Amino acid sequence: MDKTSILLQLAIIVIASKAFGLLARKIKAPQVAGEIIAGLLIGPSFLSLIQPSDFLTEIAEIGVILLMFGAGLETNLSELKKTGIKATLIACCGVFIPLICGTILYMAFYGASAVGTDEFYKAIFIGTILTATSVSITAQTLREMGKLSDIVGTTIMSAAIIDDVIGIVVLTIVIGFKDPTTNVPQVIINTVLFFVFAIIVGFIIYKIFKLVDKRYPHTRRIPILGMALAFSFAYIADAYFGVADITGAYIAGIILCSLDDSEYISRKMDINSYMLFGPVFFCSIGLQTDIKSLDTTILIFSLAFVVVGMLSKIVGCGLMSKVLKFNTLDSLKIGAGMMTRGEVALIVAQTGLGVGMLESQFFTAVILLIIISSITTPIVLKVLYSKG
Amino acid sequence: MDKTSILLQLAIIVIASKAFGLLARKIKAPQVAGEIIAGLLIGPSFLSLIQPSDFLTEIAEIGVILLMFGAGLETNLSELKKTGIKATLIACCGVFIPLICGTILYMAFYGASAVGTDEFYKAIFIGTILTATSVSITAQTLREMGKLSDIVGTTIMSAAIIDDVIGIVVLTIVIGFKDPTTNVPQVIINTVLFFVFAIIVGFIIYKIFKLVDKRYPHTRRIPILGMALAFSFAYIADAYFGVADITGAYIAGIILCSLDDSEYISRKMDINSYMLFGPVFFCSIGLQTDIKSLDTTILIFSLAFVVVGMLSKIVGCGLMSKVLKFNTLDSLKIGAGMMTRGEVALIVAQTGLGVGMLESQFFTAVILLIIISSITTPIVLKVLYSKG
Repeated sequence: MDKTSILLQLAIIVIASKAFGLLARKIKAPQVAGEIIAGLLIGPSFLSLIQPSDFLTEIAEIGVILLMFGAGLETNLSELKKTGIKATLIACCGVFIPLICGTILYMAFYGASAVGTDEFYKAIFIGTILTATSVSITAQTLREMGKLSDIVGTTIMSAAIIDDVIGIVVLTIVIGFKDPTTNVPQVIINTVLFFVFAIIVGFIIYKIFKLVDKRYPHTRRIPILGMALAFSFAYIADAYFGVADITGAYIAGIILCSLDDSEYISRKMDINSYMLFGPVFFCSIGLQTDIKSLDTTILIFSLAFVVVGMLSKIVGCGLMSKVLKFNTLDSLKIGAGMMTRGEVALIVAQTGLGVGMLESQFFTAVILLIIISSITTPIVLKVLYSKG
Repeated sequence: MDKTSILLQLAIIVIASKAFGLLARKIKAPQVAGEIIAGLLIGPSFLSLIQPSDFLTEIAEIGVILLMFGAGLETNLSELKKTGIKATLIACCGVFIPLICGTILYMAFYGASAVGTDEFYKAIFIGTILTATSVSITAQTLREMGKLSDIVGTTIMSAAIIDDVIGIVVLTIVIGFKDPTTNVPQVIINTVLFFVFAIIVGFIIYKIFKLVDKRYPHTRRIPILGMALAFSFAYIADAYFGVADITGAYIAGIILCSLDDSEYISRKMDINSYMLFGPVFFCSIGLQTDIKSLDTTILIFSLAFVVVGMLSKIVGCGLMSKVLKFNTLDSLKIGAGMMTRGEVALIVAQTGLGVGMLESQFFTAVILLIIISSITTPIVLKVLYSKG
């Protein structure tokens, strides 16, 4: 591709993303939704200003890595330790109920298939997309209502974070199945080995960063080395353990999340993300969504996917909360607070597309889920909190 | 290329650049020199960890655009107007004497050639590389001595900025000659048309940005739209006027340099540059420098190039200062202050490589000039200032 035409493409993507992102915010939808719609508009579905290309895919790939590294960096480990067992149990139900429901939904539409077949793993992948709650949307809603730090708020936040971690583990294992020659135990062993590697090497790296951070606080070298760590872990995860590269980047973020300067790193990464890599990533999802190939089945499936995605979180998290002696109203609040989906669902879907476990037409379902859940959750939470 | 191996390459580039950049700073050399040496080391010349690739070239291209946009943003238009005529005259001599000397030097080594031949333009291109003083290195040296704002300091700074502008114009015209089918008047007309376009459209865009800036100061949209402007102008310059894309990006920076938020934009762009795009750009210069292809002629030429590059600035700027009634010592200070070269020389060289007007072996000469002039200038200036 011509070098200067890359510049034109980036200019179009950046302007369109920002314009539609702001528009989305105006109507209280998540900005991300606006950026995806921008991609749809300028892509092959409508205006055909931009075609998907290797270069854009590569930039989008870096964008995902930076986003997942950022998500890891924002993890509050000490908060996690405090809320502990309860949040973990809620998160587990909030992962596995949607996982199972999503899998059954796919089979209901496209036929049940035997364990081990390609279709079976595609079904599981649809379930996997439903696992990760979007921490940022949940947090913002609670913050606006001043309910972020009470017992329900803390539980939701912790569960949402743990649910990300469990979701990533599930994704890692599911992705491990992509190669038909590998057997299930091998995939699980590789995943465990990666986490063992991450804990040992991560601990050493954390100590080194702590030293550097103490001696040279707030210097450029810290975010730069942090970013290099994210790239390296993403590479090592994929190349040596067969684990998804985004898992590696996320773990790199968690390794550094307890540094004094973690917020400093996070801020610098954030600027890198929102200026160029983030818009290209979200836009490229719109670019890859082929609206012309949608049939009635997909449209009905997408609506069912949205309903199942939202209800399964309420049921999974709510029931477990009830079991853990929360009252019914609080259990509903926790369930509703967990039903928003966001970037991570898209990243999971994108990863599935990359390894051939998801077809691009299913992006419509994921995008709809993100938009509808992000708009619904604040409304439902406000109604629930108004009752006491 | 494999997607994850891109991540590994970026990690290696980022870590090596930062390490050698810091090392360079330790020994008082410019960080940029360290980053280039990092590229030499990890590239085909030595370790062969990284090979030049389309992807890296494209990232480097974005890096140059961001660097030139940043350079434009840092221009102080009102300062320029004040120092006015004197600085312009000094800058002119500081551009044309090195331009002529560089051209003659090339002809002395590789044979004189008739006007209009490829070899002739190659000779002129060598001269063009010598035109642009590095504002940042000059400024830092003067700042450290507390001499930035006296009459000599202001004159040096203004002349260095004007010399960038003139240098860019010269580059633009020289690059215009690359296509043998275009005739000289056409190139000059296109260049003039581009500047007319830039002034008219730039004025309108400046007014729009001023409105947005007033209504939404310090919001993300300002640097994002600024970056999009840089990409668009780079594209328009190249695609519609045959003007170098870096000229477009530089002009985009100048258009926005008088905004209240110009420093805010500049800071955000700077983070984007130093985290990833900048290191990839400087490293890729090292990657492209093929040390194995160097012969004795090139080595001797490089040393001569360094001497001519430094002396021609002292002679050009110093003589004109003397003509303008500065005393001999101050004239020498001005000449010595103007002899540092930096990023812009590399960017010019890179552009020449892209259009086939420069061979990669000449990078050695440019890199040597940057390193030696950056180390020498502070020393010479200190000696001159110690005399009064």
